[in-house]
Amino acid sequence: MSMHVTAFAPASIGNVAVGFDMLGLALEGVGDRVSAWRTESAGITVNEVRGVDGEIHPYLSTDPMQNTASIAAQSLWDECGDEGGVELKVLKGVPLQSGMGSSAASAVAAVVATNALLNQPLPNEKLLMHALEGEKYASGGLHADNVAPSLLGGLVLCPVPLLPRTISLPVLSGVGAVLLHPEMQVSTAQARRSLARHYSMQQWLEQQGYLAAFIAACTNDDIELVRASLKDVVIEPQRADNVSCFTEVRVAAMRAGALGCSLSGSGPSIFALAEISHVKNLAIVMEQACRGIGIECQSWISSMNAPGAHIED
Amino acid sequence: MSMHVTAFAPASIGNVAVGFDMLGLALEGVGDRVSAWRTESAGITVNEVRGVDGEIHPYLSTDPMQNTASIAAQSLWDECGDEGGVELKVLKGVPLQSGMGSSAASAVAAVVATNALLNQPLPNEKLLMHALEGEKYASGGLHADNVAPSLLGGLVLCPVPLLPRTISLPVLSGVGAVLLHPEMQVSTAQARRSLARHYSMQQWLEQQGYLAAFIAACTNDDIELVRASLKDVVIEPQRADNVSCFTEVRVAAMRAGALGCSLSGSGPSIFALAEISHVKNLAIVMEQACRGIGIECQSWISSMNAPGAHIED
Repeated sequence: MSMHVTAFAPASIGNVAVGFDMLGLALEGVGDRVSAWRTESAGITVNEVRGVDGEIHPYLSTDPMQNTASIAAQSLWDECGDEGGVELKVLKGVPLQSGMGSSAASAVAAVVATNALLNQPLPNEKLLMHALEGEKYASGGLHADNVAPSLLGGLVLCPVPLLPRTISLPVLSGVGAVLLHPEMQVSTAQARRSLARHYSMQQWLEQQGYLAAFIAACTNDDIELVRASLKDVVIEPQRADNVSCFTEVRVAAMRAGALGCSLSGSGPSIFALAEISHVKNLAIVMEQACRGIGIECQSWISSMNAPGAHIED
Repeated sequence: MSMHVTAFAPASIGNVAVGFDMLGLALEGVGDRVSAWRTESAGITVNEVRGVDGEIHPYLSTDPMQNTASIAAQSLWDECGDEGGVELKVLKGVPLQSGMGSSAASAVAAVVATNALLNQPLPNEKLLMHALEGEKYASGGLHADNVAPSLLGGLVLCPVPLLPRTISLPVLSGVGAVLLHPEMQVSTAQARRSLARHYSMQQWLEQQGYLAAFIAACTNDDIELVRASLKDVVIEPQRADNVSCFTEVRVAAMRAGALGCSLSGSGPSIFALAEISHVKNLAIVMEQACRGIGIECQSWISSMNAPGAHIED
């Protein structure tokens, strides 16, 4: 049995414009790492949380009852653990409250690491509900659109009533993603609370139609149908004002040939999908638009089949 | 140029439980026929409308302004017609106000016949919007979930904001449909008017999740996912009371192994999907349940890839 492992779990785009709370896309090259050690003392503890800069994280708690990584790992431990325990060290690669699935990435990395320390009692897909326990603490709602892609990779459909079942969707072969993170924060929990509770039938059906068509577009590898359907007409209008650069970045992205552009999760991050030949230029254009109104930012480029969480050597 | 043609257009299941106003399935072996002749007088006229029994139809009008077939054909004629005209004879095979897409079948057959008389100026998919003109007159709403499958065959996704674009979905290879028509009528237009105008976010997202999962299930040929997702939690509860045999038929269908069972369109017809080996027995069981509470009925069995409208020799 290993005494020490490190797991990586990627950041992710929640909602992917069309599928509020039920569709998510894993990102390449950005994620959280959780290192885990066996301990003799019982249960899960958090040794330290370090930020992107390598320094001790100024906000995130090491109290195991208040950290998404330990809450998720404890849930797994309650099902599969033994009389000993696990100590976690969390290295954040995903900015906090960025709309990039930061809490989900920590929760997923923690359960993957803990499961590995226990010699893999659960297959990957069975870790989902444990990771969700951590995510639920952070976001204030049960939704798997960050946890599922972070755990499984790629584009994942995960409607709440069907959980723990999730559905990995076919990947659009010629399409990539750009994720722009403006340097500001949006509280997911607060963003959720401020959403309207009721919607007209027309709003519901319009958005449902876009989601259905987008899924069919992925299946048929139909880029023009992605362009016609990658829209959020219900949630994005309620959240766009929280992100002062959104309109500028979106207009620039669409002009530069994006198939669609919307908030990632509750923002402030903004994502666009585009044909692969366009994504590098798109990232530059989106960064320029953001800096153009005085907001510092960072961007990542990703394929649509980024790998999910895994143990690192 | 032909001087006389007859077109057949199949009945269809509207909504297919999961996709209110945006998903429809063509049926085998039941539909309307429209015969069309060139005339020297201008525009579209209706010579006669006969019912399932071959007699002159007691309700449907031959006034071309009040008949879905002629309204649809006139719309096509306005785009592609010449100085002459067309006379239509409508032979209804689909019961009226049955939830089987009766008005859509007449409208589709009329445009297919009229297009053939004109030597096919439009490809089949371009006939959709003309057929919808007839359907709109009958149902009081713009939705293509009967017209699109009747025209194109099979299972068709047709969200209103994407019209005239429609998306033919892959067919579940081992699944068939049963359609039970209890001898009663429901007015589609009235049924639409009585639906609630607003829905909670939870209702919207639950239903949207089922639709998304059902589409993925068709793609992946995943029968268990069909079973988990073929549900209407929003519209069906508002309409079930209009159909006095619905609960009994549904319970019997589910007990007999249906993957799902709901109203077809606004009812009174009830459909079920099931593994092909179950459908014959399912039809018997559903008929028995309906007659058991004193309502006469008829049923049809269909594959999921029934052909769409076509010219008959």
